[in-house]
Amino acid sequence: MEQIRQNRDFEALSSGGSPSFGGVGEVITATYYIETPYDPEKAAAVLAGEQSSGTFVAVPGETEELKQRFAARVVSVELLETVNEPAIPGAVSKEGKYHRAIVKVSWSIENFGYNLPVMVSTLQGNLYEITQFTGLKLMDIDLPVSFGKHYNGPAFGIDGCRKLTGVHDRPLIGTIIKPSIGLSVQQTAGIVKTLAEAGIDFIKDDELLSSSANSNFDDRLDAVMKVINIHADKTGKKVMFAFNISGEIDEMLHRYEKIAESGGTCAMISINSVGLSAAKKICDHGLLPIHAHRNGWGMLTRHPLLGIDFKAYQKLWRLAGVDQLHVNGIQNKFWESDDSVVNSITSCLTKMFDHNTILPVVSSGQWGGQAFETYRRTRTVDLLYMAGGGIMAHPMGPAAGVVALQQAWKAAVDGLRLQDAAKLYPEFGKSVEKFGNK
Amino acid sequence: MEQIRQNRDFEALSSGGSPSFGGVGEVITATYYIETPYDPEKAAAVLAGEQSSGTFVAVPGETEELKQRFAARVVSVELLETVNEPAIPGAVSKEGKYHRAIVKVSWSIENFGYNLPVMVSTLQGNLYEITQFTGLKLMDIDLPVSFGKHYNGPAFGIDGCRKLTGVHDRPLIGTIIKPSIGLSVQQTAGIVKTLAEAGIDFIKDDELLSSSANSNFDDRLDAVMKVINIHADKTGKKVMFAFNISGEIDEMLHRYEKIAESGGTCAMISINSVGLSAAKKICDHGLLPIHAHRNGWGMLTRHPLLGIDFKAYQKLWRLAGVDQLHVNGIQNKFWESDDSVVNSITSCLTKMFDHNTILPVVSSGQWGGQAFETYRRTRTVDLLYMAGGGIMAHPMGPAAGVVALQQAWKAAVDGLRLQDAAKLYPEFGKSVEKFGNK
Repeated sequence: MEQIRQNRDFEALSSGGSPSFGGVGEVITATYYIETPYDPEKAAAVLAGEQSSGTFVAVPGETEELKQRFAARVVSVELLETVNEPAIPGAVSKEGKYHRAIVKVSWSIENFGYNLPVMVSTLQGNLYEITQFTGLKLMDIDLPVSFGKHYNGPAFGIDGCRKLTGVHDRPLIGTIIKPSIGLSVQQTAGIVKTLAEAGIDFIKDDELLSSSANSNFDDRLDAVMKVINIHADKTGKKVMFAFNISGEIDEMLHRYEKIAESGGTCAMISINSVGLSAAKKICDHGLLPIHAHRNGWGMLTRHPLLGIDFKAYQKLWRLAGVDQLHVNGIQNKFWESDDSVVNSITSCLTKMFDHNTILPVVSSGQWGGQAFETYRRTRTVDLLYMAGGGIMAHPMGPAAGVVALQQAWKAAVDGLRLQDAAKLYPEFGKSVEKFGNK
Repeated sequence: MEQIRQNRDFEALSSGGSPSFGGVGEVITATYYIETPYDPEKAAAVLAGEQSSGTFVAVPGETEELKQRFAARVVSVELLETVNEPAIPGAVSKEGKYHRAIVKVSWSIENFGYNLPVMVSTLQGNLYEITQFTGLKLMDIDLPVSFGKHYNGPAFGIDGCRKLTGVHDRPLIGTIIKPSIGLSVQQTAGIVKTLAEAGIDFIKDDELLSSSANSNFDDRLDAVMKVINIHADKTGKKVMFAFNISGEIDEMLHRYEKIAESGGTCAMISINSVGLSAAKKICDHGLLPIHAHRNGWGMLTRHPLLGIDFKAYQKLWRLAGVDQLHVNGIQNKFWESDDSVVNSITSCLTKMFDHNTILPVVSSGQWGGQAFETYRRTRTVDLLYMAGGGIMAHPMGPAAGVVALQQAWKAAVDGLRLQDAAKLYPEFGKSVEKFGNK
């Protein structure tokens, strides 16, 4: 197993006390959407103080010089609307007025160097506790150029996943083994065989399943890879299977190695549950694309004025090195709007440094009908398009479910309307009959 | 370095397909505070389906037998008030009515065994995305007895921290090196010397500082431990210093080992930033108490109907094995109410299995004046009581700041009123003059 990369540059930066690398003078800038009963400029100054050299009274040693060097700076405050009710509990406005604003704050790279957890603690730490805010959401992070050199980003990204699956010029078509939990190892392998024979590109474990009483991870890996390897030997097409390795570090490393040794081509991690440091450790090995499942994400973003926006969130995980990241889907079964999903896809597809670009994973209630609107709004086929029940419950069987999805995407890119595609393609037509009225 | 513990029991559970350990039939039960425009019982059923074997249409293989074995169960639904406005965006009520309820849902241990990240994905995963809810907060987790055997909990806890510091029958008195960031290594060591000579029990890095351009971690560790070791040799009292090791896994392990080798007695981790798997890996070594900083916590709990309550949160981190956990403080400078802080302290001090109990870390704007109310409401001295500016900015210097805090706690336990204590103790009296009007 390849040695993990060390924080070489930052050791050089920090050991001597006088930085000697290209990052001198660089800043990290965070953009927040805030709400406050106070003057937003003053509230922003409290934030900057709390997240750098501030404390509640002046203390000896807090000199002007160090303040200049390590103090966070309020770069800009753009006033928005004023509302009458606070978004979340905090300071109470006597006048019943709560001001919203977009605030940009910057920190010198000298404060934390290349340390993602400490960057997160700085940009997303105690500032959510500040009573002066009745709303605070981290919207974006601007990273300095040296981050692009220090961090390698996704080892595979879109191009790497296309190479491994042999899929070009259309979305990767994928599915989740359902039911989420309860199938035996042999039942799972049987479904994988059916799907592989149907020409699917990608299959994943559900995030609820890692090792259950009737589906031990190692056993499932063996059974599934046997099917996939036999199929690959016969056809030349290797299905990418994202095994859910989420767990403790050593358990994950064991599973990761076993996937690689078995000829597997993907590992899945529930990134919020596992956390940043462990996820980066896995990504750093660079042998397998990492499928990043964002379950728990609703907790971090569902309130419009609390938490973190996907635009900022995906940058953190790209730095950590994940290759595929969930973005929900158009007309999904969850709470998220189509606009939000489109913005997430755009964020993922926006180039970051000279890193590989991550593959957006479109899922949740997808059955092919959404291909038309997804393509109309994003104009991209650089997607991993996941359908769960949409494939497995296809009236003509899972194989027809796969074909129907390929047909839907071909039709969407060809500029057909859903109704015309349903007439042209029998398998997709059956999908429309079964799922089209949802 | 000690080998990490393996998931022995669960390997036994899962490898054969038929569990053979004491945990057969055990369940994990989660308590949620929910809001929904639908019938709460139906919404709860959606949650249980989504987080176990559910998908949006029935699929082949989803048999009754496996449903019985792996399906999450709605244990109870206790109706609360109905409100006219949704707490967070979700499904819209035609009648403008949103029903609140306490819902209990349980999962068999067979679903995920002893895997904390997968447990988190099950209890706190996609359920936050469910459109049927306009509010959802995880309030508590009931863990089965076998968890108490599989997980060791805090290696040190309250008793271990008392032994290491030699402090009994009163709170450990601590402080945070301030300013948070910007001091040189030698300035930091100088402050540590002053505080050690003043009789302080505990000092910590700020969460914003791990390795900065003018305070390299290793250099700071060396300088600080030199001061602490000399002081310990001279007096027999070793100050516990929580060095912020937060970072990538290998970096954290390197720092952890270096602390232990240097005679240090504590390592600090920003648990939300580092994440569960990496934090557990560190805790598993068991050589140092882990000071768990919960920065970022506001994002997870500040909305009353989104995220996770501290009662559930602290259980996860106790299973991971942290020894000290932040709980904010009475009359803090942040948004949190005193009631919430008291509940958090109580949660930490509640026995969990036969594990060591974690030490609640009281901080934020504390200066000694809050000792009276803190003791009145919690009746405990099993606290790490942290004052930042309250010590460092004491009119008679940091040494008097430490003494003032000890006086305040003695007076509180003796049943004195703040005003009487201020007259009796000159150092505390000066604190009251300076900080008492906040």
